[in-house]
Amino acid sequence: MTSPNIQTADVVVLGGGPGGYVASIRAAQLGLTVTCIEADTTLGGTCVTVGCIPSKALLQSSEHYEWLRLHAAEHGIKVDGTAVDLPAMMARKTDVVAQNTKGIEFLFRKNKVTWAKGWGTLKPGNVVEVQAADGTITAWQGKSVILATGSVPVQLPFLPFDEQRVLSNVGALTIPEVPKHLIVVGGGVIGLELGSVWRRLGAKVTVVEYAPTILPGNDDDIVKEADRIFRKQGLEIHTGTKVTGADVRADGVTVHVEKNGAASSIEGDYVLVSVGRKPALRGVDPAALGLAMGQRGEILVDDQLRTNLPGVYAIGDVVGGKLLAHKAEEEGTIAAEVIAGKPVHMHYRTMPGVVYTWPEIATVGLTEQEVKASGRAYRVGKFPFSANGRARTMGETQGFVKFIVDKSTDEILGCHMLGPHVADNLAQVVLAMEYRGSAEDIAITVHSHPTLSETVKEAALSALGRAIHM
Amino acid sequence: MTSPNIQTADVVVLGGGPGGYVASIRAAQLGLTVTCIEADTTLGGTCVTVGCIPSKALLQSSEHYEWLRLHAAEHGIKVDGTAVDLPAMMARKTDVVAQNTKGIEFLFRKNKVTWAKGWGTLKPGNVVEVQAADGTITAWQGKSVILATGSVPVQLPFLPFDEQRVLSNVGALTIPEVPKHLIVVGGGVIGLELGSVWRRLGAKVTVVEYAPTILPGNDDDIVKEADRIFRKQGLEIHTGTKVTGADVRADGVTVHVEKNGAASSIEGDYVLVSVGRKPALRGVDPAALGLAMGQRGEILVDDQLRTNLPGVYAIGDVVGGKLLAHKAEEEGTIAAEVIAGKPVHMHYRTMPGVVYTWPEIATVGLTEQEVKASGRAYRVGKFPFSANGRARTMGETQGFVKFIVDKSTDEILGCHMLGPHVADNLAQVVLAMEYRGSAEDIAITVHSHPTLSETVKEAALSALGRAIHM
Repeated sequence: MTSPNIQTADVVVLGGGPGGYVASIRAAQLGLTVTCIEADTTLGGTCVTVGCIPSKALLQSSEHYEWLRLHAAEHGIKVDGTAVDLPAMMARKTDVVAQNTKGIEFLFRKNKVTWAKGWGTLKPGNVVEVQAADGTITAWQGKSVILATGSVPVQLPFLPFDEQRVLSNVGALTIPEVPKHLIVVGGGVIGLELGSVWRRLGAKVTVVEYAPTILPGNDDDIVKEADRIFRKQGLEIHTGTKVTGADVRADGVTVHVEKNGAASSIEGDYVLVSVGRKPALRGVDPAALGLAMGQRGEILVDDQLRTNLPGVYAIGDVVGGKLLAHKAEEEGTIAAEVIAGKPVHMHYRTMPGVVYTWPEIATVGLTEQEVKASGRAYRVGKFPFSANGRARTMGETQGFVKFIVDKSTDEILGCHMLGPHVADNLAQVVLAMEYRGSAEDIAITVHSHPTLSETVKEAALSALGRAIHM
Repeated sequence: MTSPNIQTADVVVLGGGPGGYVASIRAAQLGLTVTCIEADTTLGGTCVTVGCIPSKALLQSSEHYEWLRLHAAEHGIKVDGTAVDLPAMMARKTDVVAQNTKGIEFLFRKNKVTWAKGWGTLKPGNVVEVQAADGTITAWQGKSVILATGSVPVQLPFLPFDEQRVLSNVGALTIPEVPKHLIVVGGGVIGLELGSVWRRLGAKVTVVEYAPTILPGNDDDIVKEADRIFRKQGLEIHTGTKVTGADVRADGVTVHVEKNGAASSIEGDYVLVSVGRKPALRGVDPAALGLAMGQRGEILVDDQLRTNLPGVYAIGDVVGGKLLAHKAEEEGTIAAEVIAGKPVHMHYRTMPGVVYTWPEIATVGLTEQEVKASGRAYRVGKFPFSANGRARTMGETQGFVKFIVDKSTDEILGCHMLGPHVADNLAQVVLAMEYRGSAEDIAITVHSHPTLSETVKEAALSALGRAIHM
């Protein structure tokens, strides 16, 4: 391979997902020249093309379908017959994805960010070689380089992804039929979201989780209630259950499991393996580069997103932590601002997380069990959606809002929500925590009536021992 | 009438609506004995029985119906035929109202608030005489009295409410059929909300507004876009149009109007008159009591809700200002706390307002035209829902979020939203304004992706000249 001519930019970003494209735009806003390297045919990365966006499109459509089947009559809406038109639903999903990927292309043009299409490989001297689909090699050298290569799904050795019967998040978004029985290995966010989609569309769905509960790491109260609700919705959930092997056939899959020492098998026509994700390092050879890595295969960075290599930054899933698009976006923003000389740093104390099941789960800060384990004295405030006027008018009364606050200062330590539209309603709590606010701050702020947001106010009042509507 | 035996309580509350019942509960929480006087067969007042709650129930059901007709197919949901089952829809509304009114009764029992059923009349010496439905008279004397008598709809002299063909908010919630043509006099909140309900259910709806625009007083950008959207949805809107007279028949109404000097008539089968509300003073004779009143017939209070009569407070619609349930609740809370000796006061700088059309309108603080008129230098930030990923997945991309911030300090002066679920998403802005926060505070706070709340972050970034996704 001959050495290509090297083009230069102030910032070279490796990866066009939410971390990389936001870093690119923010750096361009700050007057820097930017080249973003992305091999996919579209920008947006996992989130936009095979993650958040298409899954939310299917979640939305499938939620409507379920609502129609279960609740239209009680609302006084007569429906003669209803059925899923899967090709139309999938076409809409594809269109929504395209709106977003084309939107990013527009933003790149508007901000004069160069998109170098191809697979990038980081070389010494902050040079990234780019191999285009036709084999052409170009190279970009950046005064700074931002690694934003993302993550890839973890495979099980005996269940390698074929995206026909053994699906990752990618294949689970494009199953060509409603499965008769979808087996989901892993009861985390992706498994529960995509499992919910196919259950609503008519599939039997069985979730197998190795940990003692679904959604490990979340607040115990939330997990317990979510588990109860999801089972009632029809998800079959086996926790504390190990997958020991599998037989994959052209027309289905047999998954062998073991619970409390007892072995059994589950027959399905598809299996979604959602047991976690790991940093994606294609194009980044840590050993050759001398790049410092963490124990989970993540690139190590400081709180300004600097790696140990001069001028090389890393952001998003590849640096580990919570694998969330908005975390990557924030890290991308901070990295760009650090490069531009701004006095900023990254912190994770107020990083929200959402599970887009129905009802949704939204959470920020510490869980009750974490606060308890720390020995800190605390109070809890809780308020159920069943006591909220708007939730009643919607017929969406499942779930609750829970605050954990410092016993003596009333500072909000964590907030955990299960209920309708809680992902939006969490925003006020994240902001309050950015201010290091107290439950009282939220409790004495007027919330519009009748809104779901009143539940947050009432839960904050509850932490003070004085909820009105409970 | 013989003088009845007088019972006593620390606090006597006249009226069991959102102001009165919340004041009662809060006072009881603070250790005071409380009697609340309410003549209706249920607690909750206008809001719960013939306002916010039943209207939101019908709004919700009718939104589902419209979604089904217009959008199900694009989501891949086939529906053979659909129709409105109005009795079922109304029965659900009635049930939702009952959940709420019974909830308040439960809260009264739990907090040991006495409900004195009957019409109350304030007498000198902080005595309220109560006439029950059977004519029995009792009397309650309070160390403090809180007047929370609410408001009543304004009648037009030539269109008195009969609730058969000439409807107030009460009758418009119980029309026994979908009107062929519902004429709405008054293009404010109530007219647009209830007009939207019946339009969605199949009625032709014509809105006649005297002012040059619908929703007078709101931010010009919001009004302009809302007007465009509502017309596109099928509302026929005549602004700058005066209603000069009407002929009411057993089977319909002819409304005579005049626009730019040209007279014409509109034929409908029902007319909703929603031209405003005025303080309800049944049981309160200001002249006899020496109660100081304002020019609009409202009871005058200071910022601790005290009237000029010793020990007599007033809250809610009867004191004027914005006629909003959450304003009444907050005033009720403050009045109870003042009575209990707490150092608190009422302010209105961060009072949110919502219009429950679809898309919703939510607003807090000053409009752009108000800030402009004040001569203060300001910046504007705007972000459209069409550029928000979650809105795209929902197919709900109409509207925008708009900030008005001080040019030099970045303090948020006002925020105005038109779009999906904005009533909930306004909560973070109200909180920020309670902290006297800046656009930057919201802009640098992480918002979960993909959520509608990101639109608020981006609009705040836009006020700083650096929205990412626009």
